[in-house]
Amino acid sequence: MLVFENDYSEGAHPLVLEKLLETNMEKLSGYGNDRYTEEAREKIRKAVGKEDADVFFIAGGTQTNLVIISTMLKRYEGVIAAVTGHVNGHEAGAIEYTGHKVMTLPHHDGKIDPEELDEMISGFYKDANHEHMVFPGMVYVSHPTEYGTLYSDKELTAISEICHRYDIPLFLDGARLGYALACPNSDLTLERIAELADVFYIGGTKVGALCGEAVVFTRKTPEHFLTMTKQQGAMLAKGRLLGVQFSALFTDNLYTEIAGNAIRQARKLKQALIDKGYKMAIDSPTNQLFVILDSKTKERLSKDVRFGFWERIDDEHTVVRFATSWATTDEDIEKLIGIL
Amino acid sequence: MLVFENDYSEGAHPLVLEKLLETNMEKLSGYGNDRYTEEAREKIRKAVGKEDADVFFIAGGTQTNLVIISTMLKRYEGVIAAVTGHVNGHEAGAIEYTGHKVMTLPHHDGKIDPEELDEMISGFYKDANHEHMVFPGMVYVSHPTEYGTLYSDKELTAISEICHRYDIPLFLDGARLGYALACPNSDLTLERIAELADVFYIGGTKVGALCGEAVVFTRKTPEHFLTMTKQQGAMLAKGRLLGVQFSALFTDNLYTEIAGNAIRQARKLKQALIDKGYKMAIDSPTNQLFVILDSKTKERLSKDVRFGFWERIDDEHTVVRFATSWATTDEDIEKLIGIL
Amino acid sequence: MLVFENDYSEGAHPLVLEKLLETNMEKLSGYGNDRYTEEAREKIRKAVGKEDADVFFIAGGTQTNLVIISTMLKRYEGVIAAVTGHVNGHEAGAIEYTGHKVMTLPHHDGKIDPEELDEMISGFYKDANHEHMVFPGMVYVSHPTEYGTLYSDKELTAISEICHRYDIPLFLDGARLGYALACPNSDLTLERIAELADVFYIGGTKVGALCGEAVVFTRKTPEHFLTMTKQQGAMLAKGRLLGVQFSALFTDNLYTEIAGNAIRQARKLKQALIDKGYKMAIDSPTNQLFVILDSKTKERLSKDVRFGFWERIDDEHTVVRFATSWATTDEDIEKLIGIL
Amino acid sequence: MLVFENDYSEGAHPLVLEKLLETNMEKLSGYGNDRYTEEAREKIRKAVGKEDADVFFIAGGTQTNLVIISTMLKRYEGVIAAVTGHVNGHEAGAIEYTGHKVMTLPHHDGKIDPEELDEMISGFYKDANHEHMVFPGMVYVSHPTEYGTLYSDKELTAISEICHRYDIPLFLDGARLGYALACPNSDLTLERIAELADVFYIGGTKVGALCGEAVVFTRKTPEHFLTMTKQQGAMLAKGRLLGVQFSALFTDNLYTEIAGNAIRQARKLKQALIDKGYKMAIDSPTNQLFVILDSKTKERLSKDVRFGFWERIDDEHTVVRFATSWATTDEDIEKLIGIL
Repeated sequence: MLVFENDYSEGAHPLVLEKLLETNMEKLSGYGNDRYTEEAREKIRKAVGKEDADVFFIAGGTQTNLVIISTMLKRYEGVIAAVTGHVNGHEAGAIEYTGHKVMTLPHHDGKIDPEELDEMISGFYKDANHEHMVFPGMVYVSHPTEYGTLYSDKELTAISEICHRYDIPLFLDGARLGYALACPNSDLTLERIAELADVFYIGGTKVGALCGEAVVFTRKTPEHFLTMTKQQGAMLAKGRLLGVQFSALFTDNLYTEIAGNAIRQARKLKQALIDKGYKMAIDSPTNQLFVILDSKTKERLSKDVRFGFWERIDDEHTVVRFATSWATTDEDIEKLIGIL
Repeated sequence: MLVFENDYSEGAHPLVLEKLLETNMEKLSGYGNDRYTEEAREKIRKAVGKEDADVFFIAGGTQTNLVIISTMLKRYEGVIAAVTGHVNGHEAGAIEYTGHKVMTLPHHDGKIDPEELDEMISGFYKDANHEHMVFPGMVYVSHPTEYGTLYSDKELTAISEICHRYDIPLFLDGARLGYALACPNSDLTLERIAELADVFYIGGTKVGALCGEAVVFTRKTPEHFLTMTKQQGAMLAKGRLLGVQFSALFTDNLYTEIAGNAIRQARKLKQALIDKGYKMAIDSPTNQLFVILDSKTKERLSKDVRFGFWERIDDEHTVVRFATSWATTDEDIEKLIGIL
Repeated sequence: MLVFENDYSEGAHPLVLEKLLETNMEKLSGYGNDRYTEEAREKIRKAVGKEDADVFFIAGGTQTNLVIISTMLKRYEGVIAAVTGHVNGHEAGAIEYTGHKVMTLPHHDGKIDPEELDEMISGFYKDANHEHMVFPGMVYVSHPTEYGTLYSDKELTAISEICHRYDIPLFLDGARLGYALACPNSDLTLERIAELADVFYIGGTKVGALCGEAVVFTRKTPEHFLTMTKQQGAMLAKGRLLGVQFSALFTDNLYTEIAGNAIRQARKLKQALIDKGYKMAIDSPTNQLFVILDSKTKERLSKDVRFGFWERIDDEHTVVRFATSWATTDEDIEKLIGIL
Repeated sequence: MLVFENDYSEGAHPLVLEKLLETNMEKLSGYGNDRYTEEAREKIRKAVGKEDADVFFIAGGTQTNLVIISTMLKRYEGVIAAVTGHVNGHEAGAIEYTGHKVMTLPHHDGKIDPEELDEMISGFYKDANHEHMVFPGMVYVSHPTEYGTLYSDKELTAISEICHRYDIPLFLDGARLGYALACPNSDLTLERIAELADVFYIGGTKVGALCGEAVVFTRKTPEHFLTMTKQQGAMLAKGRLLGVQFSALFTDNLYTEIAGNAIRQARKLKQALIDKGYKMAIDSPTNQLFVILDSKTKERLSKDVRFGFWERIDDEHTVVRFATSWATTDEDIEKLIGIL
């Protein structure tokens, strides 16, 4: 059975695992106060081009989203996101559980539109009753989005400017950030993201780590952030587990290099799909391909490949997702193309 | 420098790491739906003697406490704990953050007293105004306690009976459970704990794993428990990370065997401390030893050993903690004894 | 200055105030354990045709909404509402503050559509990933809606059937219920609402009381509901304040009779508006009229009348609201018509 | 039957009710934007001697406590209170429901001790692990306390100084403040309280109003406080209900004058109790008297008087509470003394 179900089907990249092995018996302090975590912080500061950025490590994506959002919002504020944003639909109400509303904007292939954002916020302040409403307190974007699409520098710059005009932070969810950075079509570099966003994270779970996301605060870190991560159960006793992995991922460009494999494999697959007459539901430039299958083809492919169900179009058609990853091999792709 | 600071200074036990390595490139489903996690569940069900127990894996201890307590309590209920209970003092208000009160009982070397517990609950129901008060909704005990002490079968049975008389669950925090089970003085077996407690967890982080706690529901699992763990950010995409480790820990008694090393080393150390005239603050039978040091001795030992600060007694005396673990070697202990 | 700004501009109906005066010096027990509150409960049970309904009194509307929703939802559930629902837009995130998501449906003149509701819930259960999502746990409708419109018996019956098919409660916000009941166009009686809804409230604040809403549970009351109202600060020490008022309002049909005045005055005003060529933004049959004004007319009227701003259409047109109430006099209406 | 059960058995003081009556049909803006509420604010600012104080009105005591505490605390902070503090034991976990811990100090006849407070806070900061603990974020005192006792100027000054040394606010719960101010033994004036406390409230519910507490911020009001009161359901549409009452209560010293009656009646009763050999459990100078009754006497008195049950001492003795109020008459007291 071929597996193109998602980008977290394997364990860690071998070099990440190797570093865990090498450092395993060293006696290190807990809670992220070890030298590997410090090393990872330094490497990430360098990679994002901000010597004074604050870097923290958290085990998973939903946890990172809820910790960042709930520690940065004031009590009377909500977070603005695309209706398709992960925080809105697929985190079991994690943001609301912390007491905050997710305020939704329409999505455009997974992205929010700067003009619609501006209109929402300015409309709020123009409303005479806005003291009875949730204040817009943060903007959440994912990059790549849930549909594999990417913001351009111009788009993210526009969003960032709106945020800063209203003095609210911009948060970029980079659960799959590696796949964006490795994408030749993208003009948004890591340094540029660090300039535009007030906080973002560099996803490890889906790009080579066993678990772990690196949170980067570029301007202002919430006071007593560590205490609040503890309060939400997001602080690991063996913080080294995350520090060691990110230290390995940020050695010799491992992070973007392995992400590059996913992009190359996805391009081969995309070309083959198009050549064979498949229709793409969304024109994604990254490692997730959304394809429209008719029922017969879907059934036929299901026998040999595991892929993700995305959404039903009508009785005869479904959108499915094929995801490549750092671990996808040429052989896997060729086999898959062979049976398309 | 010798390190006796805590029991989570190293990575994972070599056999645990080996299994992570072996299974690393297998393509597995996410969120705990993989065969290693299922394997671990089965092994734990067998070990606790409950074929129908529900087993879940969560990355860390505070997270496990807050997920269990917040999913089992009704909205108008609080959790009863010793004033020294980890959930009361050292989790940054994690329980309160989920909306629930920690209702404290005095501690007796870290333990709660069944009579005082009974009095608290019966007193609540006798109070004519109790509808204006927080209902006692659960009892939390840690075993070993925060002071390294252990409940006897008789004590835990009494507590369990009180809980069930009032129809509230008993929750046993086993962050260091291995060290209790490996302790020859203890008459509480894993099977017995599974009979007495409604929910408990088998700590991995402090007993050989990189991270991870195995939660066991022995009677009634909260409905949609998975959804609620997701909601609190406690569900890992790569659930395999926890499943694989616990599968290794529950193969050939690895879990209690490696815990046994900690106990043996602690006993040697304890005897040496007593022989050399040190005074113990608490008579702990497990892997944490609480010793009273005068300032001079404290300063002298600090040069060669890292140990934990516990509490100040007066200007001249301090309680400190020496912790052994599955990783403590004979050589470490001998060196430490040499400089005491 | 004429005042048509809202329906809570005056104090209480004179008969309500009179009963407060008469009973003022009686020494009564607190927290709703007095005979007037019991009297009010009985009268309401009779009026709704449910001898075994549970009736509670809460001071205000937002408070009532948040108490009902947060006590009836399970932790992993959200409440479904029209995007225009009061709980979604105008309560400052009160529902989210209690940890729950408001799941929005499109509105049709303020109402939700049964088919769209059915699709949303069935779609949820068909989604293979629904364990990672917020469960639909309750349906919220307002009657009259925020746009003054009314559900028909047929519509509410359809919604109720969907709720009960999925075993979730239907909650009807009746902040202005009197104005619906007094409306000759409406085929939904109080008894019928009590059959269809699992919980609803009869608004006092906007229909003749100083403050107060009567909550009616028709099937199942949340356990320890009183304790939870206390926990949310929604229990008055002098519960009599609400009991006495509702006892007066439910004596000799006072409640619907005074609401009838608002409806009659609104009809006169509506006819006059139409006759004079004004355009209605929404065809509301109740006491709130939504009228489109051009800038000039708006400015002119503003000199003599206070009305509510609703929403901007374009640079030249605005929707405004004229509200009548139990206290609106013939004279007020005639003066207003005179200057239209 | 004589009623000495509590101080909220009657409705409102006649002059308060009269003002409600007088203003009833005036058309006023909602949410506290009316001239009576503004009038009340002005009178209170004058009475407390702070021209720039911010004054808000909230319907009940528990609600006021939870709104103030939850809007002033940062997310990682808890509130310090006596173990007997109303917020700790008798508000159904209202503070914890907002996500914050109540951190308890021992009580001394209901009061906290400045030295113990200082020790708790300084101990927190000395603890090397305090980042894993709840930060002390506010001090809560009640005056009179739950035992009817009063802080002296010296005591409250000491507490205030400690708070300000650690830069945390002091909150004084004045649910019965009138009875403290009217007490000849007390050297704490309203002006002095406004200097020492950062926020306090002047209780109306128990001192002459139908409902309502006046919150006074003396230094710094939480940003968007109104939005947060709305979010917690604590904003009344007819804000006038509270404004009108407080305007009446702060006309011609009505508030302290009517409280004076309670104090005079309590003194007569206390003297009579002592003369007849009854033993006081606590030496309360205010309107609540705590008396030790043996079972026989308790049973005998119960036939003619309603009083409050406080706590059981042993099988034969109970502490009960007799409360006087602004409404207690000479006749009531004489009758009660007659049957003691």
